[in-house]
Amino acid sequence: AAVLAAAREAFGMQGYGATSVRAVARTAGVDPSLVLHFFGSKDGLFAAAIELPVDPAEVVAGLLAGDVDDLGERIVRTYLAVWDASPGQGPMLAMLRSAVSHEDAAEMLRELLLRVILRPLTVGAGGSDPDLRAALVASQLVGLAITRYVLRLEPVTSASADELAPLLGPTLQRYLTGQLPGPPDGLQS
Amino acid sequence: AAVLAAAREAFGMQGYGATSVRAVARTAGVDPSLVLHFFGSKDGLFAAAIELPVDPAEVVAGLLAGDVDDLGERIVRTYLAVWDASPGQGPMLAMLRSAVSHEDAAEMLRELLLRVILRPLTVGAGGSDPDLRAALVASQLVGLAITRYVLRLEPVTSASADELAPLLGPTLQRYLTGQLPGPPDGLQS
Repeated sequence: AAVLAAAREAFGMQGYGATSVRAVARTAGVDPSLVLHFFGSKDGLFAAAIELPVDPAEVVAGLLAGDVDDLGERIVRTYLAVWDASPGQGPMLAMLRSAVSHEDAAEMLRELLLRVILRPLTVGAGGSDPDLRAALVASQLVGLAITRYVLRLEPVTSASADELAPLLGPTLQRYLTGQLPGPPDGLQS
Repeated sequence: AAVLAAAREAFGMQGYGATSVRAVARTAGVDPSLVLHFFGSKDGLFAAAIELPVDPAEVVAGLLAGDVDDLGERIVRTYLAVWDASPGQGPMLAMLRSAVSHEDAAEMLRELLLRVILRPLTVGAGGSDPDLRAALVASQLVGLAITRYVLRLEPVTSASADELAPLLGPTLQRYLTGQLPGPPDGLQS
């Protein structure tokens, strides 16, 4: 519990990149090897700190193991399965609500979405401009969660993952692997 | 100010549908004709209550006046213009943050998005299943705002509306006018 509290504070305040397993262990007063023993890696510690019901690195590897042409639909199914895994979407909803109202929680969600999930996914899918593609995918996935679980707009809230996958999958597929318009240079920041 | 406070409370507590100009006027202790004189209509009162910088009904009419084939891109440009109209996105960001954390604010945003903006837009664009299409459009638009203004994911935050329109426009265009997969009956709720 002390390790998780230290991890939450470090990831939230300094972001994922600037947080080390060693520093978290020091704050919690334990040996870094103990942290690695329990959480496997910095990714695993991060997932535990934000109470993710899955290991994001495993999820990304599983998604990339399939046919890249169906990747968009598979992402929708997997994403909704993670959300629907907890009754009432408790931890995921808490993370989303915190991110929208607190900058340190926003930083954690940003790190999770981009560095741990979407950038590896985008690079794995092979498209150019991985940062742009990852941000576009994030925009549709975060918006789907808000629409389905926060605003509860029908029929999206009552629809099953099987019904939503072919509706939203092509959007993600285009963002991940499609030909995007315009000179990419104009969008590099 | 008394009228706006009464309107905010009524729209937030009872929703748009159950709120009448007459009831808001009564709560504020003024004549309904005065409310209509200042705000034009229930839509106008609603827009003022949530501090929208534009009249949503006018925006929808303007969007539908153009070629339906470019509607997706025009929506992206108009939506970003409304967000970028206020420095720091103050009122819009406040509305979004409130909606994510308070159910009464969520009800106001739901009403605004669906009844005042997206359902008229979807019906005007002529597609079947307007509720489903409106909810899909909402998912991408709300997600774009969170990505650009809350999570501030690059390069989406620094990109101009002209750069984002061709990236996100096709998504909205498909949701509004495209052939959607699956038996629509399965998604009626």
